[in-house]
Amino acid sequence: MKLGSLRSGRDGRLVVVSSDLAWCADAGHIAPTLQAALDDWERVEPALRNLATDLAHEAIPMMRFHERQAAAPLPRAYQWADGSAYVNHVALVRQARGAELPDSFWTDPLMYQGGSDGFLGPRDPIRLADETWGCDLEAEIVVVTGDVAQGIDAVAAREAIRLVGLVNDVSLRNLIPAELAKGFGFVQSKPASALSPVFVTPDELEGAWDGGTLSGALKVDLNGQPFGRANAGADMTFDFGVLIAHLAKTRSLVAGTIIGSGTVSNRGPDGGPGRSVADGGVGYSCIAELRMVETITGGAAVTPFLKVGDSVRIAMEDAHGHPIFGAIEQVVEGV
Amino acid sequence: MKLGSLRSGRDGRLVVVSSDLAWCADAGHIAPTLQAALDDWERVEPALRNLATDLAHEAIPMMRFHERQAAAPLPRAYQWADGSAYVNHVALVRQARGAELPDSFWTDPLMYQGGSDGFLGPRDPIRLADETWGCDLEAEIVVVTGDVAQGIDAVAAREAIRLVGLVNDVSLRNLIPAELAKGFGFVQSKPASALSPVFVTPDELEGAWDGGTLSGALKVDLNGQPFGRANAGADMTFDFGVLIAHLAKTRSLVAGTIIGSGTVSNRGPDGGPGRSVADGGVGYSCIAELRMVETITGGAAVTPFLKVGDSVRIAMEDAHGHPIFGAIEQVVEGV
Repeated sequence: MKLGSLRSGRDGRLVVVSSDLAWCADAGHIAPTLQAALDDWERVEPALRNLATDLAHEAIPMMRFHERQAAAPLPRAYQWADGSAYVNHVALVRQARGAELPDSFWTDPLMYQGGSDGFLGPRDPIRLADETWGCDLEAEIVVVTGDVAQGIDAVAAREAIRLVGLVNDVSLRNLIPAELAKGFGFVQSKPASALSPVFVTPDELEGAWDGGTLSGALKVDLNGQPFGRANAGADMTFDFGVLIAHLAKTRSLVAGTIIGSGTVSNRGPDGGPGRSVADGGVGYSCIAELRMVETITGGAAVTPFLKVGDSVRIAMEDAHGHPIFGAIEQVVEGV
Repeated sequence: MKLGSLRSGRDGRLVVVSSDLAWCADAGHIAPTLQAALDDWERVEPALRNLATDLAHEAIPMMRFHERQAAAPLPRAYQWADGSAYVNHVALVRQARGAELPDSFWTDPLMYQGGSDGFLGPRDPIRLADETWGCDLEAEIVVVTGDVAQGIDAVAAREAIRLVGLVNDVSLRNLIPAELAKGFGFVQSKPASALSPVFVTPDELEGAWDGGTLSGALKVDLNGQPFGRANAGADMTFDFGVLIAHLAKTRSLVAGTIIGSGTVSNRGPDGGPGRSVADGGVGYSCIAELRMVETITGGAAVTPFLKVGDSVRIAMEDAHGHPIFGAIEQVVEGV
């Protein structure tokens, strides 16, 4: 089952979307918003699934689903916590910043509490006031949880995963070092993130989902050129069950909590940083990682961060080459 | 005007509360929840104020307001960002951790993005799974904003302040050093915070509110004994306008955003750490600060962090000695 939100008010209007993303059906009679559906999932889910079946059979009134008209599935959420499950990425970015990577990062998940009050829709621009801030994309997998009890273990936490989607976790790289040096995490260096047009239930992912990890190439294009094709199922040191349990160690989590994987990143065949797509590799899911590789191989970063007018596209396809979540497509705009 | 939420569903049921906190009137016909009121404040506020006037005149059906039955005014919120505006506190806590205080901390606000998905009610217990985590209270002032535009300045940001209240920002001191060393801020070391029984509009604070700072003694009691009487209007290096503008530098903020002052803390008359209440001073708004002073004056911290069975009370009184926000009263419970 695929779920989206059409633009309406602060929380959008819940729709069930066809598997091919071409059609949708209003779900307002079941739950007005996705958050409302998550609040009452046990009761609501069967009704939504019936609606999805009716939609698949074209047995109900349906509308064209246009990704450009979609809001974020959760235009505002009660929680957004982003892990760094691809430790390869963390190692490279730290190396680029000249910061050390403690050994514990391979066993203890790194995570930050992000701003969840405003998620951009999949076609919303990135509004950048200052190009010198070093605007970067970060292509990631996200899951949305139900209610999670304090102290849950990593295996039980998998059962709390209701939906899976994509995020562009926009980062302002040049603001990060000074902000992290203050010791309290990201505030100004993480502006609003964009979510994929639809979030899907895990069963929709078939064999690509193992209960805690999504496999498949995360297709990232920059200004229309292939930039990243990293496999989200490879090199994920911590699965989503581990990430949820980490966040819930000292407190419960409310339904609708969004948990991010961190930037998807694959090692090269030799265990080192991978090659670019142009160079025959799987590329990268953020510009910082390419800049790091450029620094290692050529002595200096060459690829600039995002400038006004640049475009980013993030999507993932199923085994038949069809987009699973639709595409995040954003253009950088000045403010 | 004072607003509270009675326990009901996930978001409570909005009530207008009398100035003396003895009575309340259901506001459900105006807005079902406080978040709904904040979402549509320009339209809703006048109707709520009329209801408050009717309540004051006993012209409408009213119910007793019992703080122990109140939920947090916002049982779940879309954003909670906590500043550290009392830099004296930051300096002492850093000194206690053996961490340096950069000079920039006096000019650039320190702030962290907190978990906003579950605020405890004013009488809810602190559920502590492990006493060795070093559970501490942190008594703070909070404001709730309307919608805030990206890039707002600190003066204009004051106009976005809709409500003022109190928080107990519970902290797990012994988890903080390792978590902050990872560089991404607080996740496990900041469990759920508790909010005061009511939030109030700034006009309710009369001369104690200057548009960005609240003056008055923040009364903190520990196990029934006076622990802190620090003046929230003194030594606040950054007012709430500055804190809001800091958070909004790179993105907009949604209505219902809660911004914290950080632990209220006053310097002693000599400019150093103040004395305890028992020793004739204004005391402290968290245990860590007392432990720091004990370390400075006696070579070692003596006062333990919170244990199961300990109780905390946080309140502030108006010029007539009446509680403005009601009292946060929490007992620590095992899990």
